[in-house]
Amino acid sequence: MSEMTRRNVFAAAAAAGGLMTVAAANAPQALAQTQAGAVPSPLDGKELPSFRFALGAEKPKMMDGGHTKEQTAVNFPVSQSIAGVLMTLQPGTLRELHWHSNAAEWAYVIKGRCRITIIDPQNHSQTVDFGPGDVWYFPRGFGHSIQSLGPGDCEFLLVFDNGYFSEFATFSITDWLAHVPQEVLAKNFGVPAATLAGFPKREVYMVKGPVPPPLPADPAPGSLDVGSRTHRYRLLAQRPKTYPGGSIRLASMREFPISTTMTGGLMRIKPGGLRELHWHPRADEWQYYLSGRTRMSVFGSRGRSRTDEFGPGDIGFIPRGYGHYIENIGNEDVVVVLAFNNGIYESISLTAWMASNTPLLLGTNFEVPESTFANFPKGETTMPG
Amino acid sequence: MSEMTRRNVFAAAAAAGGLMTVAAANAPQALAQTQAGAVPSPLDGKELPSFRFALGAEKPKMMDGGHTKEQTAVNFPVSQSIAGVLMTLQPGTLRELHWHSNAAEWAYVIKGRCRITIIDPQNHSQTVDFGPGDVWYFPRGFGHSIQSLGPGDCEFLLVFDNGYFSEFATFSITDWLAHVPQEVLAKNFGVPAATLAGFPKREVYMVKGPVPPPLPADPAPGSLDVGSRTHRYRLLAQRPKTYPGGSIRLASMREFPISTTMTGGLMRIKPGGLRELHWHPRADEWQYYLSGRTRMSVFGSRGRSRTDEFGPGDIGFIPRGYGHYIENIGNEDVVVVLAFNNGIYESISLTAWMASNTPLLLGTNFEVPESTFANFPKGETTMPG
Amino acid sequence: MSEMTRRNVFAAAAAAGGLMTVAAANAPQALAQTQAGAVPSPLDGKELPSFRFALGAEKPKMMDGGHTKEQTAVNFPVSQSIAGVLMTLQPGTLRELHWHSNAAEWAYVIKGRCRITIIDPQNHSQTVDFGPGDVWYFPRGFGHSIQSLGPGDCEFLLVFDNGYFSEFATFSITDWLAHVPQEVLAKNFGVPAATLAGFPKREVYMVKGPVPPPLPADPAPGSLDVGSRTHRYRLLAQRPKTYPGGSIRLASMREFPISTTMTGGLMRIKPGGLRELHWHPRADEWQYYLSGRTRMSVFGSRGRSRTDEFGPGDIGFIPRGYGHYIENIGNEDVVVVLAFNNGIYESISLTAWMASNTPLLLGTNFEVPESTFANFPKGETTMPG
Repeated sequence: MSEMTRRNVFAAAAAAGGLMTVAAANAPQALAQTQAGAVPSPLDGKELPSFRFALGAEKPKMMDGGHTKEQTAVNFPVSQSIAGVLMTLQPGTLRELHWHSNAAEWAYVIKGRCRITIIDPQNHSQTVDFGPGDVWYFPRGFGHSIQSLGPGDCEFLLVFDNGYFSEFATFSITDWLAHVPQEVLAKNFGVPAATLAGFPKREVYMVKGPVPPPLPADPAPGSLDVGSRTHRYRLLAQRPKTYPGGSIRLASMREFPISTTMTGGLMRIKPGGLRELHWHPRADEWQYYLSGRTRMSVFGSRGRSRTDEFGPGDIGFIPRGYGHYIENIGNEDVVVVLAFNNGIYESISLTAWMASNTPLLLGTNFEVPESTFANFPKGETTMPG
Repeated sequence: MSEMTRRNVFAAAAAAGGLMTVAAANAPQALAQTQAGAVPSPLDGKELPSFRFALGAEKPKMMDGGHTKEQTAVNFPVSQSIAGVLMTLQPGTLRELHWHSNAAEWAYVIKGRCRITIIDPQNHSQTVDFGPGDVWYFPRGFGHSIQSLGPGDCEFLLVFDNGYFSEFATFSITDWLAHVPQEVLAKNFGVPAATLAGFPKREVYMVKGPVPPPLPADPAPGSLDVGSRTHRYRLLAQRPKTYPGGSIRLASMREFPISTTMTGGLMRIKPGGLRELHWHPRADEWQYYLSGRTRMSVFGSRGRSRTDEFGPGDIGFIPRGYGHYIENIGNEDVVVVLAFNNGIYESISLTAWMASNTPLLLGTNFEVPESTFANFPKGETTMPG
Repeated sequence: MSEMTRRNVFAAAAAAGGLMTVAAANAPQALAQTQAGAVPSPLDGKELPSFRFALGAEKPKMMDGGHTKEQTAVNFPVSQSIAGVLMTLQPGTLRELHWHSNAAEWAYVIKGRCRITIIDPQNHSQTVDFGPGDVWYFPRGFGHSIQSLGPGDCEFLLVFDNGYFSEFATFSITDWLAHVPQEVLAKNFGVPAATLAGFPKREVYMVKGPVPPPLPADPAPGSLDVGSRTHRYRLLAQRPKTYPGGSIRLASMREFPISTTMTGGLMRIKPGGLRELHWHPRADEWQYYLSGRTRMSVFGSRGRSRTDEFGPGDIGFIPRGYGHYIENIGNEDVVVVLAFNNGIYESISLTAWMASNTPLLLGTNFEVPESTFANFPKGETTMPG
């Protein structure tokens, strides 16, 4: 029990507990004390909670033209800082024009093709097509739409840099306009009110439509007003960094400048491979497993450690600063999408750390002979095989 | 009911509710669970709360030489991030030397003239006169005073970038020195204790005095130690951006570099004019209505919308990312002071957004023929007439 | 009582109190109301709490080879933002390889010598020796170790920029590896599992070992991979700024570029000297008294002031924006280590502030004749004698 929880206990006893009747006049002092300080976290306990959420096993929310599954801080409390949505759209289906008031949106296209439209606060817009392995990033509040282009369904993963993004934070254009009187809309658009009579009276959210034609190779002169930074990064096209145990692709702010609040990644772990012991000092890590059988272990200080197995459709989460490693325990490659809530990617390697200390110090620290470390790696291994 | 509220309900039931008596020993677990996660907001409900606060109808706090009215997060809970004060000083009255520990101060002079003195953390100072339409900005913690110069009362609006600025956050020089032993003050100032015998024994706050003489046109050589950035911006003197429905002046960090945490503005809406549907992705908006009759509607996602009418003396508030529009519904110009809690001004226009999407997409999204959009604006309109 | 507290009272009565039965269906409304708004602070009360914590009087936590004393937000609630640890290591004793997940670490060496090893997120490392008056800074999450070099014990002060750094935020390498299966470690290090058989099965934390040999004057070519910024600053070697009443040394981000979140200092106050009335607009101040007898007074607005005496081993804390002064009330020099939770040092001087205002204004403000201020200082005095 943390000290903070301990104080809460005291306050609960003083203000609310047991058989005691508390006069309202006495309560404020105790309450004012209890809530001071850091907000309690799901991680404040003797035992670590689960870091796995089986998104794939969730019942999809079916809509006309597609379906979604959602993970937020509500159904996966350790992930206070990051939420995820898996969405599938049939060819032509449009996820309507909308924005999010409290989160940036990062996405990875798993299969199929889709077209994005986006507007920024300078009222510059972009229309861009995405295919498998492509990533997008929309800063908080930017308006956007997503339409599946076919052939076949388009499936993509949305990741938000706020675990509480969902409730009262997704603003749809039809929901908005359904609440504006027609005479105001008429004035706003400079058209007769009758023009707007057919507008939906409720939120559309997702709607089937025709697949749009290809984008023109050469936009007509004067037709576009495009922002200076692209919202698309072709992550799968990136030449990966390869190691004996697998490979990693990363899209931080360095590779993908608009992605200031998030770093994305795609990691492949070979059978028998290991993503070595490491930690990220200034970012939470969110994972979505696409294939393979994985074991991940997370270390949370003070003797707390938790190990779990992950398969396709599972989400993993590692709090900022927590030590961890990831093993492929199956016969096929593990492929996992990574998202960090920091545009700067940082990682500290256990092997590099130990290699930077003398055998004398390590021998003292581990209470073993210096010779123990003779054949340890001389630097970061990242992914031993 | 939000998911977070839902969990609170569960916790309330588990820890305190119904027919159950909870032993203090069991309470901490439940309490630790309840407080995890985001802090609930006054906006977390099925119905949007009011976005209007009738500052003008508040009973003024009368003082010797002036009076004030105040809006904070306490009397207007949606405005957690911004507080406002309307202050009137008779000629010669001094709002004494003071500072605010938890908020920057932005101000708009409504009528009359006043003189400001200010000191920054490099101990550089400025003394500047202000008149109607002038704006000031003091970063958090900078010491300052305000004195009315006459003729006539000086009325100004103070806006703070923290809804909780008021309680225990205004530090007055006389209140401070009244609590310091005279022998310490004597040592501090290098003067005999007797010199300080007449100092007030309590906070002065506001005090009548002589109107000071005009500032010298040419300061004496060696007389000043002035910081590099001005604290005054003449907003009303700015050439406004004009539209069919009215005009807008803005003082963001770009026009007024010291104003790093706030953008101010002055908007005039002609009779029949409309500030079009739009949203600010990264700032809350605070408004003070000076004249005219206005209707404003705010959209809060998930079918929540609220419309209200505003007149002179009313404060309006629009949460970050919320869609909104503002109509002049009277016969005279609406004039409104705007303040945003971000030094960078950003706004996304509905008409620009729609214009950047094809009629094909819009037809799909709104479930109407493409021809519906034939005469829609080709870009941002800002203020249609 | 603040409005927030008032609302909490209501909620406590409604949701949790004594003999009252609350229907779960009614609770959510009340709860949703209670938690909205700013988090209460230990400073929200009619009386200021104590700003003194007697770290020296704490019972040390004895370990094999050293001992520690700790101050956090739990035992010193006003210091929500800063925690401190006093640590003593016998010659050769190693504070093992570890990191902190939620705080940067700043340190001042009081006596003796020690060696630091550190690794950053680029996996660059440094090994540096420290002596009395030296300061280090490790950004949040960087791995490090501390070993006493003798002769004599090494005593140092650790300061963390988070009052809640302690619980579940210190990650030790042996604790971590004790929770990883040997076959995983074998794969991670590329060595036979038998090599690791002797590793500790629990957290070592502190361990006695041989004093390491001197660092080589000229590192072997190719032997190092050092980051670009030093983690050591020789504060005592700095030429101090001197005043009639004493002297000040400061290490802000300007003098010590890696120290982005903290400024450190060392202040000496002569007998009879005074650190004049001043405040820091954007940083909390944390103090550790090394010698002498001190009186400090803190002003907290609304008539709240508190004065206390400090001696060797005491910690002092001044909230951001609170006015304060510090007197030497003894016969020997006061020496005090300072730490601010901002890499930029800022201070506003009462004498400079008053000097920048005219006698006319000061006379009005203090309700005394203008002549009262004739002999006041013409600018900042910092430390009058």
